[in-house]
Amino acid sequence: MAKISLKNAQQTQLFTYSFPLRIYYEDTDSGGVVYHGQYVRFLERARTEWLRFLGFNNTELERKYKMLWVVTEMSMNFLKAARLDDNLDVTVAVETMGRVRCTFQQEVKRGDEVLLKARVTVASVSATSFKPIEFPADVKRKMEATCL
Amino acid sequence: MAKISLKNAQQTQLFTYSFPLRIYYEDTDSGGVVYHGQYVRFLERARTEWLRFLGFNNTELERKYKMLWVVTEMSMNFLKAARLDDNLDVTVAVETMGRVRCTFQQEVKRGDEVLLKARVTVASVSATSFKPIEFPADVKRKMEATCL
Amino acid sequence: MAKISLKNAQQTQLFTYSFPLRIYYEDTDSGGVVYHGQYVRFLERARTEWLRFLGFNNTELERKYKMLWVVTEMSMNFLKAARLDDNLDVTVAVETMGRVRCTFQQEVKRGDEVLLKARVTVASVSATSFKPIEFPADVKRKMEATCL
Amino acid sequence: MAKISLKNAQQTQLFTYSFPLRIYYEDTDSGGVVYHGQYVRFLERARTEWLRFLGFNNTELERKYKMLWVVTEMSMNFLKAARLDDNLDVTVAVETMGRVRCTFQQEVKRGDEVLLKARVTVASVSATSFKPIEFPADVKRKMEATCL
Repeated sequence: MAKISLKNAQQTQLFTYSFPLRIYYEDTDSGGVVYHGQYVRFLERARTEWLRFLGFNNTELERKYKMLWVVTEMSMNFLKAARLDDNLDVTVAVETMGRVRCTFQQEVKRGDEVLLKARVTVASVSATSFKPIEFPADVKRKMEATCL
Repeated sequence: MAKISLKNAQQTQLFTYSFPLRIYYEDTDSGGVVYHGQYVRFLERARTEWLRFLGFNNTELERKYKMLWVVTEMSMNFLKAARLDDNLDVTVAVETMGRVRCTFQQEVKRGDEVLLKARVTVASVSATSFKPIEFPADVKRKMEATCL
Repeated sequence: MAKISLKNAQQTQLFTYSFPLRIYYEDTDSGGVVYHGQYVRFLERARTEWLRFLGFNNTELERKYKMLWVVTEMSMNFLKAARLDDNLDVTVAVETMGRVRCTFQQEVKRGDEVLLKARVTVASVSATSFKPIEFPADVKRKMEATCL
Repeated sequence: MAKISLKNAQQTQLFTYSFPLRIYYEDTDSGGVVYHGQYVRFLERARTEWLRFLGFNNTELERKYKMLWVVTEMSMNFLKAARLDDNLDVTVAVETMGRVRCTFQQEVKRGDEVLLKARVTVASVSATSFKPIEFPADVKRKMEATCL
């Protein structure tokens, strides 16, 4: 379901992962547009599918490494409103990658129009103690390979 | 926060528990009214506060008895639409009470207008196996005391 | 994205429309499974995509016919719990079709396992008055063609 | 339902509005804590009740001034996780107040613990064109009176 746009070699990112989604009634509010809180969910759906594209999923990460993702920081700029029945694309790109934290740049787009720009920092934490733990080596390697 | 309306002695129910809530943008959809799926949440908020009114809460039930509530069946009749800024009341009454199952009759009201009628059956299950387990005796006793 | 399963001629339904979806963190609750209220959203996403499969969408129906869909009645049987990362299919089949009302039978499945069975009645109402109005003729014709 | 804490005169803010809320199953995810996207809703509930405390509500603002609030920017720092059954307080304080935009500082607290810090910028837009419009004079006056 995901589209990958190759970009020219001078760019720091090799590719941008993009996840498509549709707007349903559940996503809208009585202002007639998408409820602003829903974008947080769209951003996470895209990060989850990007992770799956890299070969991992949250259920396995928890079972194998007792690891959970926690969002520690996020900022969003709402540029234009999405509406019922819109087809959107949500992009995922790694901005910085540390030992326990990773910052993503994400956009929500309708065709070429950028509706929302976001920066999201996630941390790897223990599923039992909620304390920070280092990313598993294979996860880190695959995630780093997507940025440069 | 809850109102309790005493009713006359011939009724099978001694009282009806009622939980108030307010409608926010998050609850509405672009049709201009409350999104129908939100009522499921309103009904559960009311059951949770009713349980707290009886002296129990879900966190303790899980810690003490390894018990979770699971909804096994529900039906809803949507009579009138709620709107932004409405103040609603959600009632909770026990219809039947078994060893592992309990059926509630609930209503969502705006003043005297009934907006939604629901019947909800919940079961007590093990938090680890998700298999049915009997209600803890003190929970059952308190719940039965509310019906007659 | 939808799969259509042809069935044998003796069945009253010619085909069952099926819509796939994935479970994300947003869909789950701290019981470890999908929050029961989310299924209402899954059922509507499937009906919306089924409608699109028939050639209609909600934005156009409102613009062209001043028509909104309203759910007037629904019942759900929760048989098994869905979990994080599950791939589900949501089916849509018309049970009865009237002039202003239509009743659907829907299932949420994980592979061959049926997790939830639902019956949902929707009505066609005026987008301005919320009073019942007849289905547009072309919508009705297409919907009827899917049942038999 | 709201608590107002008076602070000493040297502070730039005369008071901090605080709105209480309870955590239900619908707010949590299978990580065992509150789903991060829910905080956006909590922040808006508090702003809505703060507005009501000032004497305004969204339905009237739209009817009287054809005005809607739109969130144009928000940033959140997630410091600690909230859990099922928690009682939280959400604060609202105006940081800056312009002609069409207003920036809030908000916190989500559990007792004295700060769980989340947020900065939220909202704009006043036309309910029909979604173009920025100036705040109604009485709304602006009341909002300004809360900051200093």
